[in-house]
Amino acid sequence: MNTLNSIPTLSIGVDIGGTNAVFGIVNEDGRILQEASIRTQEYPTADTFVEASVACIRPLIANVGGIERIKGMGIGAPNGNFYTGCIELAPNLPWKGIVPLAEMFHLALGIPTYITNDANAAAMGEMVYGTARGMKNFIMITLGTGVGSGIVIDGKLVYGSDGFAGELGHFVINRTATARRCGCGRCGCLETYCSATGVVRTARELLQASDTPSLLRDIDPDKLESKDVSIAANQGDAIALQIFQRTGEILGEALSDFTTFSSPEAYILFGGLMHAGDLILRPIQEAYDRNVMPVFRGKTKILVSSLMNTNAAILGAAALTASE
Amino acid sequence: MNTLNSIPTLSIGVDIGGTNAVFGIVNEDGRILQEASIRTQEYPTADTFVEASVACIRPLIANVGGIERIKGMGIGAPNGNFYTGCIELAPNLPWKGIVPLAEMFHLALGIPTYITNDANAAAMGEMVYGTARGMKNFIMITLGTGVGSGIVIDGKLVYGSDGFAGELGHFVINRTATARRCGCGRCGCLETYCSATGVVRTARELLQASDTPSLLRDIDPDKLESKDVSIAANQGDAIALQIFQRTGEILGEALSDFTTFSSPEAYILFGGLMHAGDLILRPIQEAYDRNVMPVFRGKTKILVSSLMNTNAAILGAAALTASE
Repeated sequence: MNTLNSIPTLSIGVDIGGTNAVFGIVNEDGRILQEASIRTQEYPTADTFVEASVACIRPLIANVGGIERIKGMGIGAPNGNFYTGCIELAPNLPWKGIVPLAEMFHLALGIPTYITNDANAAAMGEMVYGTARGMKNFIMITLGTGVGSGIVIDGKLVYGSDGFAGELGHFVINRTATARRCGCGRCGCLETYCSATGVVRTARELLQASDTPSLLRDIDPDKLESKDVSIAANQGDAIALQIFQRTGEILGEALSDFTTFSSPEAYILFGGLMHAGDLILRPIQEAYDRNVMPVFRGKTKILVSSLMNTNAAILGAAALTASE
Repeated sequence: MNTLNSIPTLSIGVDIGGTNAVFGIVNEDGRILQEASIRTQEYPTADTFVEASVACIRPLIANVGGIERIKGMGIGAPNGNFYTGCIELAPNLPWKGIVPLAEMFHLALGIPTYITNDANAAAMGEMVYGTARGMKNFIMITLGTGVGSGIVIDGKLVYGSDGFAGELGHFVINRTATARRCGCGRCGCLETYCSATGVVRTARELLQASDTPSLLRDIDPDKLESKDVSIAANQGDAIALQIFQRTGEILGEALSDFTTFSSPEAYILFGGLMHAGDLILRPIQEAYDRNVMPVFRGKTKILVSSLMNTNAAILGAAALTASE
């Protein structure tokens, strides 16, 4: 007999990274009730990884009242393909080739299991628990070591014909001879300019190009991090502000172009860079407004994720259980 | 009582342009059974236009057996908004402001009526009657006086948050000081390079930049048309081939970037330019293959519309009646 208590309302979110795999149990309000992790690299095969994961998750499930309370599991992982449920050729994970991870967890736990990449999971997290609640059309941009994106149209994530749609970090925004080399093997991708590492590259370029005094000159250029730029910018450092200005301009221009594609209600920006607040948001917004096609002017909001101080990766993965 | 004969299977397609409005009745196989037109500019108000249109359509409907055989009407018009059913601020039409044309036709004829812009209608036409039959994810690119686009994801046209998504002709592909001025008020849009007028601009530039002999030098530069370039290219003219090479490269690069958005199964290209066949397709494909992100390599087809020698605008508009 169904009672109110027996309706499953909790979700398991799994964030698989090159170093750690983190497991969380999330309630409908986006609160993480239970959390634990294992070291990804300790498991050379997917079988041993799933076995260890399940051993790690079972006590968490018991703590919240048993598997009957869990409606499903979502996994965010590099090269996770929603369509196939597989991790496909992920360069930074120990398991090579095509790994049917969703099916493996489904067999082990008996609950519906979904997988996608981290940025798509982040977009789902925003839609279910964060800034994009109630939105049907938005684009999530994650500004981390790289630039990721998750595109939501009519309330659904865009996976495209092969499951890998939404790679806006690899939109080429510079085709000149001086375009920066990207990890994807090409040159001029957005992420070579607007990621944390892109910000550091811009910092090194601007420091070399002038003699303007800067707090950043006190740091070994090889050890410079994007958060050093944030700290300096917050102190009014001219070079740091110029780095944010340039980074924001490039991102704002790119977003104005992306609008011609799906005319989203909002862009949701996520990542350490966004802690700089208006110092980075203002140049983004100004470049966007200056460059967007007239028919779209004033329509699309540029917002910062409300999940930046939470374990957003777990929330995003858990939100996948809301997929149709 | 319903008999087989009473199930409506025909659609009315309406193509509204600045000069003519063309009406066609289309069967399930994409054959135009009836066709007629009126002069758009003769009707200074939307009311008189709808009245004249209905007077023009009624005999066509009678010829196919009456309104019971018609399942609906689709309208392709500049600035047609699918969500609102209105034509909004169309610069080249006589009716100013926001015109609720779908509702006006619905009231006059009593059948479901849909409206969208020409390029979106073209994409629907490809999906229902043309090259994209059976595809769920593709992007239509119309290369005419301008460059239009219609984006289909999961079998549905992307209209975005405001009904105006899919303006890839206004993606900015050149932000340098020498970028071409666009009719939208900005500079460097794809359509300033890859439309028929863009091809003519490239022709003038290349003719000025060298003394290479060319058949195109026999034509008054002010009267040069893109079809002159096609004719010359077909005769092996070096400058004309160079124009196609450059145009194809720019389009192929742009398409390779669009793939990072929705990873479509195919691009469907439509327009007079595509009559040049391999002369333009080869540089597009080569630039696409050279520039696309490795994960998408070899996945997306670049195809020419199969509706180029039909009244594609009527078919596209009629296909809107397949909208949910």
